[in-house]
Amino acid sequence: MGLRWDKGTGDAMALVKLIEYADASRDVKAVYDDIMKTRGVDWINNFWKALANDPAQLKRIWGNVKQVMAPGALDPLLKEMVYVAVSATNGCEYCTHSHTAAARKRGMSDAMLMELMAVVGLANETNRLANGLRVDVDPQFK
Amino acid sequence: MGLRWDKGTGDAMALVKLIEYADASRDVKAVYDDIMKTRGVDWINNFWKALANDPAQLKRIWGNVKQVMAPGALDPLLKEMVYVAVSATNGCEYCTHSHTAAARKRGMSDAMLMELMAVVGLANETNRLANGLRVDVDPQFK
Amino acid sequence: MGLRWDKGTGDAMALVKLIEYADASRDVKAVYDDIMKTRGVDWINNFWKALANDPAQLKRIWGNVKQVMAPGALDPLLKEMVYVAVSATNGCEYCTHSHTAAARKRGMSDAMLMELMAVVGLANETNRLANGLRVDVDPQFK
Amino acid sequence: MGLRWDKGTGDAMALVKLIEYADASRDVKAVYDDIMKTRGVDWINNFWKALANDPAQLKRIWGNVKQVMAPGALDPLLKEMVYVAVSATNGCEYCTHSHTAAARKRGMSDAMLMELMAVVGLANETNRLANGLRVDVDPQFK
Amino acid sequence: MGLRWDKGTGDAMALVKLIEYADASRDVKAVYDDIMKTRGVDWINNFWKALANDPAQLKRIWGNVKQVMAPGALDPLLKEMVYVAVSATNGCEYCTHSHTAAARKRGMSDAMLMELMAVVGLANETNRLANGLRVDVDPQFK
Amino acid sequence: MGLRWDKGTGDAMALVKLIEYADASRDVKAVYDDIMKTRGVDWINNFWKALANDPAQLKRIWGNVKQVMAPGALDPLLKEMVYVAVSATNGCEYCTHSHTAAARKRGMSDAMLMELMAVVGLANETNRLANGLRVDVDPQFK
Repeated sequence: MGLRWDKGTGDAMALVKLIEYADASRDVKAVYDDIMKTRGVDWINNFWKALANDPAQLKRIWGNVKQVMAPGALDPLLKEMVYVAVSATNGCEYCTHSHTAAARKRGMSDAMLMELMAVVGLANETNRLANGLRVDVDPQFK
Repeated sequence: MGLRWDKGTGDAMALVKLIEYADASRDVKAVYDDIMKTRGVDWINNFWKALANDPAQLKRIWGNVKQVMAPGALDPLLKEMVYVAVSATNGCEYCTHSHTAAARKRGMSDAMLMELMAVVGLANETNRLANGLRVDVDPQFK
Repeated sequence: MGLRWDKGTGDAMALVKLIEYADASRDVKAVYDDIMKTRGVDWINNFWKALANDPAQLKRIWGNVKQVMAPGALDPLLKEMVYVAVSATNGCEYCTHSHTAAARKRGMSDAMLMELMAVVGLANETNRLANGLRVDVDPQFK
Repeated sequence: MGLRWDKGTGDAMALVKLIEYADASRDVKAVYDDIMKTRGVDWINNFWKALANDPAQLKRIWGNVKQVMAPGALDPLLKEMVYVAVSATNGCEYCTHSHTAAARKRGMSDAMLMELMAVVGLANETNRLANGLRVDVDPQFK
Repeated sequence: MGLRWDKGTGDAMALVKLIEYADASRDVKAVYDDIMKTRGVDWINNFWKALANDPAQLKRIWGNVKQVMAPGALDPLLKEMVYVAVSATNGCEYCTHSHTAAARKRGMSDAMLMELMAVVGLANETNRLANGLRVDVDPQFK
Repeated sequence: MGLRWDKGTGDAMALVKLIEYADASRDVKAVYDDIMKTRGVDWINNFWKALANDPAQLKRIWGNVKQVMAPGALDPLLKEMVYVAVSATNGCEYCTHSHTAAARKRGMSDAMLMELMAVVGLANETNRLANGLRVDVDPQFK
């Protein structure tokens, strides 16, 4: 029924082994080092430890995150808040926690989080009103 | 099989009649007037014309939109972009069109839209990687 | 790039051929006959014509619909309205149209449809508020 | 990485502080009182305690719930069951628990819950069959 | 607020009682026996114990699973992997665990699971890019 | 309300200009050339023409698709079918059409498509039964 990887805590649930830094290959360590350096932290969160089971995928996804979340036409705080909005819409517990933490680090206050959630909630509501009543797009919007 | 409301065009798809200004009750007209005044436009989009079949709901939803989308801890452009992000995630055609138009009016460029979509796409991807591998939330995020 | 099945109208979009009654095998005709008899109609809607490409699947899905939507602990109108609520939440255009038509046949008025959509919209909103703020389930609810 | 609000239990997960009645402002207390009076209960569930971080949002969302869930063209039990159907479709743990509890209070039996889930499951299945095969809406449904 | 069914463990959370083999009716036992025989296992997982509250639904859903997941035009391992892909997309914790276990039993390695998740993640990303930019379907695809 | 890009057909709906090969920059042309060479086709589909508004994003997403969809632990046809399964689950019209076409090119028959949809439908159904009844994951699956 699949191996367990919980090291005795009884709580770990990931469907694959979490690769710790000490156990990682050189390629994986290089990505871990770049994550910690880029983010100014000294630890690796579980998401990357799970992806590390496929080093090429770890490198690819981290490369995407690094490129997309960098400053550009939009500022990094706005991007983190959009990430939270999508994660809340999809009901992803892990991503809601990790990106809310990231947004707080970049300056999101409780008031900003609450207001963000108000927009997310409202958008999810009106999305269904429009879809449920099958409202045609006005030509003026096209 | 339900009445048709298309006035001969063969295209209209809404599941309820769209209430035009000229045909609206005094209560509905009051909401329509407030929408046009608040937004500085001289027409009503189909979403509100569909909701007007239930005047109390029209008034309630417009009241919510007016309150939530007003300037506050977050600026209105950021809010419109979050609305677009949620609508794209949910695949709501009507809301994607209408809120992209609203965001453009507030200053969103093509470059900003493309970068917004990059974040939306990436968040939808990593949401599923975290959910699919059932990654536990790190205690540091809580 | 796949065959087209549109018979020259340029509009048909289904990814498989729609099996008309005249072209159907005996097994498929038997299901079509049961659909028309059960529903008191004299035509087959496109959903079944698409499923008929796999006669065993057509029979299985129709058997499920017939069993689930029959009167039981819940009345058929309530069931059709729940079907509309789920279809609106998922943004399924076909099912929203077909089950709204079915609910109207069973007595759903415009006022009932509008009120149903109000609940659907609100539930979609508060689902995201609860998920986005990661609110713990109160022990009293368990 | 954000403050913790768990008061030592180690279990609380909400991303914002839960505002207890004793710690609430007068505005928040007024909403809490109205919730308890309307529902005939003597406690406040976590959802509202989280929203209370933004008193205007608490008041707005409660106002919406109170208006939408009141008796109207549809009876309150049907509305609670639709709420459960949407919450199950979206996978919202909190809302599934809280609205199943509310529906049971209004008379939903185990048999009714099981039959509701049968409809929810079937609708989610056929939504994807229609979407996946891209079945065109029959003109008869429009 | 509804009965609890946890038999003192404090852990069981299902919204309905889980029907154990010893407590099951003859009809339910017959389905349980067929599940164990078909799968070559000597225990029943919680999903079926919950469905058993409605014996007709238990029989119907098991009949569907047995028919759909049997070898046919597609091999059973591919079907289990598709099941995992859908469950990860929908964020269903129970189904992700149970069908990943089933796919591993049929031969899915860690490398195959990681590659499957890569496809699932990418599809969820590009689905939103296409939906968010409202890209028209090329006539060549139809 | 935003510029239109439809070149007079009245049908084009994309929210950004579609960049044709003749109008593309050298960087964009390089990606277009690689897409056509890799796939053995002589045209570019609209998805890439929309992404080309952000050449870095075009290059990044194409790089991801090329890497993820290449043969590996899973064969390319299985991957395309998983892509179709996710797209049908999310209701993405564009991706359902484009990846069904791609899967057909790699050998997916009508019978295989129908059986794939049967699994997708069933998984979407049981995902909601498990989520709606809040069934605990059996320890044996962990």
